[in-house]
Amino acid sequence: MNIIVDAMGGDHAPREIVDGAIQAVNEFNVNITFTGVEAKIRAELAKYDYPKEKIKIIHTDEVVDMHDPATTSIRKKKNSSISLGINLLKESTTYNAFISAGNTGAVVCAATFLLGMLPGVERPAIGLVIPTLNKFSFLIDVGANTDPKPEHLLQSAIMAKVYAQEVMGINDPRIGLLNIGAEESKGTDFVKDAHKLFLERLSNFAGNVEANEIFAGRCDCIICDGYVGNVVIKISESLMESALTLIRREVKKSPMSMLGAMLMRGCMRDIKKHADYTEYGGAPLLGVNGLVMISHGRSNAKAIKNAIRATIHEIENNVIDHIIQEVV
Amino acid sequence: MNIIVDAMGGDHAPREIVDGAIQAVNEFNVNITFTGVEAKIRAELAKYDYPKEKIKIIHTDEVVDMHDPATTSIRKKKNSSISLGINLLKESTTYNAFISAGNTGAVVCAATFLLGMLPGVERPAIGLVIPTLNKFSFLIDVGANTDPKPEHLLQSAIMAKVYAQEVMGINDPRIGLLNIGAEESKGTDFVKDAHKLFLERLSNFAGNVEANEIFAGRCDCIICDGYVGNVVIKISESLMESALTLIRREVKKSPMSMLGAMLMRGCMRDIKKHADYTEYGGAPLLGVNGLVMISHGRSNAKAIKNAIRATIHEIENNVIDHIIQEVV
Repeated sequence: MNIIVDAMGGDHAPREIVDGAIQAVNEFNVNITFTGVEAKIRAELAKYDYPKEKIKIIHTDEVVDMHDPATTSIRKKKNSSISLGINLLKESTTYNAFISAGNTGAVVCAATFLLGMLPGVERPAIGLVIPTLNKFSFLIDVGANTDPKPEHLLQSAIMAKVYAQEVMGINDPRIGLLNIGAEESKGTDFVKDAHKLFLERLSNFAGNVEANEIFAGRCDCIICDGYVGNVVIKISESLMESALTLIRREVKKSPMSMLGAMLMRGCMRDIKKHADYTEYGGAPLLGVNGLVMISHGRSNAKAIKNAIRATIHEIENNVIDHIIQEVV
Repeated sequence: MNIIVDAMGGDHAPREIVDGAIQAVNEFNVNITFTGVEAKIRAELAKYDYPKEKIKIIHTDEVVDMHDPATTSIRKKKNSSISLGINLLKESTTYNAFISAGNTGAVVCAATFLLGMLPGVERPAIGLVIPTLNKFSFLIDVGANTDPKPEHLLQSAIMAKVYAQEVMGINDPRIGLLNIGAEESKGTDFVKDAHKLFLERLSNFAGNVEANEIFAGRCDCIICDGYVGNVVIKISESLMESALTLIRREVKKSPMSMLGAMLMRGCMRDIKKHADYTEYGGAPLLGVNGLVMISHGRSNAKAIKNAIRATIHEIENNVIDHIIQEVV
């Protein structure tokens, strides 16, 4: 199994990217090919012991910045670590997947233009495994397509169903359409049209799911447009951080609370682990003709290692073949 | 000051509504007129001591159910506690405002049709005071208008500015447009159009605000459409509840954690108070020609009392006059 990893993508690249990839080659049966600035990657690699034959580097000087606009980054930086990696995936059957923690828009654009779409899928969508009170759900789209048509949402729903079944191991996943009320008559015109289409064409459709039901785990797959999905994940992430900041601030005001917090440390660690994005590591970009995994810009080594593990799981379970069968 | 209160609206009506209103007449300089089923209201009133001249009841048997579709509830239940109350506000100068914890869609519809819109405002919007790490921000729209035009968002922004200045006491409020990136080029076509309009027409425009910046308090007013705003508040509410459920579940697994949780109780109480919607009580419905406050369906007596307090504050600060001056 050969996975291409963008060594330059993310806030802590290449340090954490290389660290995570080394952990992965030591733990899993996988070879890694880095794209990026060779000297910088070699400097990081020098810190570790690892089977040398499992790591390759394909050098490029061009790096896409987090603030580069997505489309221009593709046109003007044709040899960026992102475009180079995705081209490699396209042109050589040696490689099974590409992972980047870099500029999400640039990855989506490069993957769409260079790999093309799967038959029957018109637009890409980014899915995300999210922890819920029950276990895990799959939220799609969290930012690839902000102005979708109802048919794009249907295609996302079918891809989500495949992902939930094949990768997350959920039998007969319940699929919900994110909306602001349970009734068919609720929501924007767009969501109402999508609801009609889902009723006609989607088995396992569990109807509208309200935002307050997401973390309660009422549905296995939650389908929404990329604008609202992006808001959902950013709100969730920041709210937990704000809550922790508030707790830390308040705890310091009383010695009793500080003692209490110390005693609760183990319990809080378990909770944080359940809610920690680095445990799942990446968000699959679905719909494009190739396995592409997008990692959080803040990814640390653990997140990268886990993104590689999730990608291996996708490869083993032939996600793309299953999507093609279901969508057409 | 005379406020009409829908005694039948909300999950705990009329018990908590009457209780909260009694607390308000005892604490504030306000008279309350209830609309609703007189016998039920009287049965609740009998539990309390209060200055009798400060409470009136206008009887109606018709009650809008939480699941009644908004428009039909207005057409078919012309004498509901909601429509009756809003008509009263419209037709008599005795009354200053109307409050309901009932069916939000029905309140928005009734207020829009019966009171009409303010000059220069085309659509109503529901604002909400939300606690942030700094202090408080004002999020608008949280559910009145799910398919707005960019001009509607501009009108909401101006109303938000007035509310932040006059009611929340924020000088020169910074106004942000909710989006999925800081750059002008980000987001849906709709949000991009709104961004252009804000740049042209809005002083105090602080640019796009991302969802993860909401609770950090980067902007005083956050403007969005009613669909995404509704998702934001429902996610936030449910995420805090899910986190607390998780903590309770985990704490029980170890005696040390249970002791820790006991020691942290005071600190957690302060945090919950800061994050507690009942402290602010209600969400103003802005844009209609009359002061209407919408309370959470789950409102308890404290939420109702605080909604009445916030409404008094709106009346004293002539919110509607200020909006008319700013919008036109």
